Amino acid sequence: MRINLNENEKIEDLQIDDLKIIQNKTGFCFGIDSVLLSDFAKEIKEDARVLDLGTGTGIIATLLCHKTRLKEIIGVEIQKEVCQMAQKSIKINKLEDKFKILNEDILNLENVIERNSIDVIVTNPPYERIGAGIKNSDNKKNISRRETTATLEDFIRVSKSLLKDKGEFYMVHKLYRLVDILYVMRKYKIEPKLMRFVYSTYGREPKLVLIKGIKNAKSFLKMQDNLYIYNTDGSYTDEINRIYNR
Amino acid sequence: MRINLNENEKIEDLQIDDLKIIQNKTGFCFGIDSVLLSDFAKEIKEDARVLDLGTGTGIIATLLCHKTRLKEIIGVEIQKEVCQMAQKSIKINKLEDKFKILNEDILNLENVIERNSIDVIVTNPPYERIGAGIKNSDNKKNISRRETTATLEDFIRVSKSLLKDKGEFYMVHKLYRLVDILYVMRKYKIEPKLMRFVYSTYGREPKLVLIKGIKNAKSFLKMQDNLYIYNTDGSYTDEINRIYNR
Repeated sequence: MRINLNENEKIEDLQIDDLKIIQNKTGFCFGIDSVLLSDFAKEIKEDARVLDLGTGTGIIATLLCHKTRLKEIIGVEIQKEVCQMAQKSIKINKLEDKFKILNEDILNLENVIERNSIDVIVTNPPYERIGAGIKNSDNKKNISRRETTATLEDFIRVSKSLLKDKGEFYMVHKLYRLVDILYVMRKYKIEPKLMRFVYSTYGREPKLVLIKGIKNAKSFLKMQDNLYIYNTDGSYTDEINRIYNR
Repeated sequence: MRINLNENEKIEDLQIDDLKIIQNKTGFCFGIDSVLLSDFAKEIKEDARVLDLGTGTGIIATLLCHKTRLKEIIGVEIQKEVCQMAQKSIKINKLEDKFKILNEDILNLENVIERNSIDVIVTNPPYERIGAGIKNSDNKKNISRRETTATLEDFIRVSKSLLKDKGEFYMVHKLYRLVDILYVMRKYKIEPKLMRFVYSTYGREPKLVLIKGIKNAKSFLKMQDNLYIYNTDGSYTDEINRIYNR
């Protein structure tokens, strides 16, 4: 198969079966957080209408196509150039029938997709608040990492609008923003029902949180077992090896 | 020393040094949650003005008098009979100079204590929502366990009003209500800054959460190491032995 790469693009091996992702050589690269989110959301049913909000290079949707039986997922991404990379990844991984890209601003999504029509939303939104830390000089990195074009509240407000009653919302985010996350989810009636903390290794602070919310559900939070990435000797844990199909 | 016990009262050994607590033979008994909260809050400074909201038989305040250098703590309790038991415990433990009881309704506290005047509030509020589960036939148990006279939101709203700017709020609660807790704390600007999950043992779900908030602080949540009560062989963990001074 022939894929035309721009000179600033590279093919990255996802190291999960034969999946590959086109990435910008100097842009925002996929991380383990996306891999963990696609595992956390792997119970998605095959006939579900699924959106990946802020799909970026398409890593989460690509993995969900591979790990679940779902028939179709739409990845929404505001950056045109990033969408073009995702299209090439779709072609490489032969996912044209399942994975569609929608080049759209999250803030305009309610004008494009019918409200209360989506079964499942997955999202790995930008982590950092605007103004937090040092700005990346590269604007594409900024849009992927920081809340420059849409905030956490925007992602959740739009999700609430698009999800059906009892629709599912899966997100990975930084642990230090947990209060922001739970507050805004509750505010928009996507009730947090299940959380899983991700630790680099044992005895450290958790860095990431995987969270599942259900629109209009009753309040009752459960925790899933902690997820550890490394054993104390630096090797990957059994669970990480399972997630990577090793 | 002579302590007059009513026939429905008993003296319970706290099993921490020589501390004792008067409890109702058939009433709501102190649990490990109060012991863990007093340990979690042990950095309280000696000259702090401290309130224990819903002090019950006074277990948390008794332990704080013992574990910290604080000079005075006021325990607020709505139930007159429970206050009388707490008074007897104060006498047994010789804490008359440090630990005062205020028989008052939380909902009336802003009329009794000056606003923005308190440095630290500790609380082990009733855990269950009204109507949740099966009601205890005993009304005293109900007031201690369920939100019959004041809700979680009441406890936090009143705390916000009484705490100074940057005043500290320490609470123990059930994990399944974490969304309620974080939502209401954020709503009343007692920003959650530190959390610690309490597990019965390894590999189980956490049951309790210890949480520290600071009034008007910026948003940034940290997690303290998980606290495990039992080793897998059923013995107490080293940390529990430390907390109990064993």
